[in-house]
Amino acid sequence: MKMIIMAGGAGTRLWPLSRTYFPKQFLTLSGMEKSIFQMTIERCLLMGSIKDIYLVTSKDYLHLIQGQIGDLGLTLPQEQILLEPEAKNTLPAIFYAVQAINKTGGDICAVFASDHVIEQPQVLADTILGASQLASKGFVCFGLKPASPETSFGYIKQGTTVQGGFEVAEFKEKPDYETACRYVKDGYLWNSGMFMFHSKQFTEAVKTYAPEVYKAFQAETVEEKFKNTPSISIDYGLTEKMEKVYGVPMLMNWNDIGNFTTFYDRYQSKQDENGNVNFNDEIMLDSRNNLVYSEGDKAVAMIGVNDLVVIDQKDALLVTHRDQSSKVKDVVDILKQRKDERADLHLTVFKPWGAYTILEDSEYHKVKRLTVYPGQRLSSQMHYYRSEHWIVVKGTADVMLGDKDHIVRTGECIYIKVEEKHRLANPGNEPLEVIEVQTGSYFGEDDIVRFDDDYIR
Amino acid sequence: MKMIIMAGGAGTRLWPLSRTYFPKQFLTLSGMEKSIFQMTIERCLLMGSIKDIYLVTSKDYLHLIQGQIGDLGLTLPQEQILLEPEAKNTLPAIFYAVQAINKTGGDICAVFASDHVIEQPQVLADTILGASQLASKGFVCFGLKPASPETSFGYIKQGTTVQGGFEVAEFKEKPDYETACRYVKDGYLWNSGMFMFHSKQFTEAVKTYAPEVYKAFQAETVEEKFKNTPSISIDYGLTEKMEKVYGVPMLMNWNDIGNFTTFYDRYQSKQDENGNVNFNDEIMLDSRNNLVYSEGDKAVAMIGVNDLVVIDQKDALLVTHRDQSSKVKDVVDILKQRKDERADLHLTVFKPWGAYTILEDSEYHKVKRLTVYPGQRLSSQMHYYRSEHWIVVKGTADVMLGDKDHIVRTGECIYIKVEEKHRLANPGNEPLEVIEVQTGSYFGEDDIVRFDDDYIR
Repeated sequence: MKMIIMAGGAGTRLWPLSRTYFPKQFLTLSGMEKSIFQMTIERCLLMGSIKDIYLVTSKDYLHLIQGQIGDLGLTLPQEQILLEPEAKNTLPAIFYAVQAINKTGGDICAVFASDHVIEQPQVLADTILGASQLASKGFVCFGLKPASPETSFGYIKQGTTVQGGFEVAEFKEKPDYETACRYVKDGYLWNSGMFMFHSKQFTEAVKTYAPEVYKAFQAETVEEKFKNTPSISIDYGLTEKMEKVYGVPMLMNWNDIGNFTTFYDRYQSKQDENGNVNFNDEIMLDSRNNLVYSEGDKAVAMIGVNDLVVIDQKDALLVTHRDQSSKVKDVVDILKQRKDERADLHLTVFKPWGAYTILEDSEYHKVKRLTVYPGQRLSSQMHYYRSEHWIVVKGTADVMLGDKDHIVRTGECIYIKVEEKHRLANPGNEPLEVIEVQTGSYFGEDDIVRFDDDYIR
Repeated sequence: MKMIIMAGGAGTRLWPLSRTYFPKQFLTLSGMEKSIFQMTIERCLLMGSIKDIYLVTSKDYLHLIQGQIGDLGLTLPQEQILLEPEAKNTLPAIFYAVQAINKTGGDICAVFASDHVIEQPQVLADTILGASQLASKGFVCFGLKPASPETSFGYIKQGTTVQGGFEVAEFKEKPDYETACRYVKDGYLWNSGMFMFHSKQFTEAVKTYAPEVYKAFQAETVEEKFKNTPSISIDYGLTEKMEKVYGVPMLMNWNDIGNFTTFYDRYQSKQDENGNVNFNDEIMLDSRNNLVYSEGDKAVAMIGVNDLVVIDQKDALLVTHRDQSSKVKDVVDILKQRKDERADLHLTVFKPWGAYTILEDSEYHKVKRLTVYPGQRLSSQMHYYRSEHWIVVKGTADVMLGDKDHIVRTGECIYIKVEEKHRLANPGNEPLEVIEVQTGSYFGEDDIVRFDDDYIR
């Protein structure tokens, strides 16, 4: 069996935790040791091996994916990471992976989102593995027992029982609240967004029910495929149109952390006697049913407030009523209109070679902390408007200045003059940390002249 | 006329804006160019000259006071800055200044708090100057027209009218809410905490009505005076006991910014159409009557919340309902119990030579920005557990290493080894700014061995 993980989603609904270039699947939530994406990978390893995993994502997230897979001690072969040239919703994304799998001869495929939080991974794995027989017969979707009458999900009406599941009588997308209540009462299931099918049969189904997608995907290059295909979800484009779809119930808790309301629900078990959820011993006086999520190095106090979600990051703060958190996307839209970078980036920006964090930024200086992963190096580069001092605070650096190499050890410093060609590398086995102090007249990221780059930027 | 400014108050009620070692009088509020203390000094200059000003304060605030007076381009002679060895409330504080004034022959004195926000300073100055005749006859207090039935203030009942004011019929301390409403209806005035008297008459009054304070203050040293005196306010110790006190109405707006409720009132004129007060274009969706006060370099958004005060600092965040802000002192108490330094200090800590700001602090490194005032220098010192790189980002530094002096210019760096004696000085006319990167095994402020210090610490 092959596993297809869709990891291209750009989440804005958890801003400021998530940003355009750091969607929620890459977040490591408080109390977790791994990111949501990493846990998705580990879940897949309960059902198969890394060589059976196909990732569909955007090139914007490639280095995040490689970094987070690397942190698990794993390597995913380049040909199993499929980069969408543009976002065209789920049907083209899945079909992209299906075509790749067909090239290897075809197989049963299971499709997963990368941003779901699953507390019982073994239940999921057992259900998926148990459904392979049914998936060899036709298209299978997985239904979850509704925890509440959610209006933002799709619902599955169960029909005739078959061996290992049921026939789907009907799909119902995003009902109104009253209808959702009726669905829950009548035993409808949430459509989980997980699917299973044989890749050859899937291809036939696309040909029959989504001929424009099929036609576009006959092109030679992936750029052409995505340029010509309509943007369409698997639900609208395929599942709802197919004559026969099987359903399998999945008996576990599930949370898509779609907004801060469900985010709060996720931490229900962590509530104190006043219904407050907090992680860093925040001070709560006369306050009830709040969630406080801070970076942990800050003194936070709340007095006389109820039902708030407070998300504090070094560069951004959100205070929202718990029931109004769906408006977070409006906040992101306003920031984008203002061309405010904090819609898109954190203070810590991940790069293929590691990450940097801005510690201070003024008109006459800028201070950054650089982290370089073991064995990685930045591009060779120079700047017209700034000189830089690099102080190694952890590990050992290999610094090229002009044509000469210098080893700079912990506690040592090296100076890079204006217009001097330089390159920073980590020759060691542990992350390298460097404090960079820039002085000069301009500190923008566009004052970088690149000569050579390991990551083809 | 002499002016006595009481600047010893340790405000905790505006945490995290104010801290134990940075009380509210030293804050420069949004939209202001000067601190509350500096505006108090400037108000006094409407009534006299700097040589007529006597400051009573704690030694903890001496460098803040000298720095802020220096920023005004003024110098207050050392003998007019009176340092209380310990806090013993207002009567001993004022008597300390009165004794100093008596030594110069005695004079009419006006007493002011350093932490009041006065929007019509000229009205205050005219009222004070107009009251000197009355003050030569006896003790004068100043009454403000109540803006609301406050229960935390004292009230003055007006008696017989006299030339330039009235005789006080009665003082009423902190009434309950119903009584306060009646007082406001019956024309009582708020007791402003400003007083006027002749220093010799004041001394006689202390002898008569507060003999224990008088006796204690016959001691030779200021340490003994403060050690032996009871802790007592001028209201309880003197004003309420005196047979005859004059009152003068002061017809102006006044705000003591005693908590975030009055802090919000202070900015009433800045409210937008939804009653929100904010200073940095914060995003407010479906939110009313909130005050957001951030450091300005952060994206802040509020959704669906009402009547909140949100105070965001780099190291601390307060979210309080506007009517509950009196509990801020409980937050500070909790922090103190936890021995959390953020009760006492900001990330930026003011020193006699300037200030430092912690930019990052980990177990293996620490990054600070140092600001050294023109002509000032730090103590000569050394560290056992850390080496330091100093990168000058603004101005020119004079660095002593061992016995040798080095000039370090903007963009240059100098290295201080473990156990090497060193000293940083600013020989220039503008503030010097240095990024300090510490590496080593321990970064506490107690790993400083001081050899010589300009400020006798």
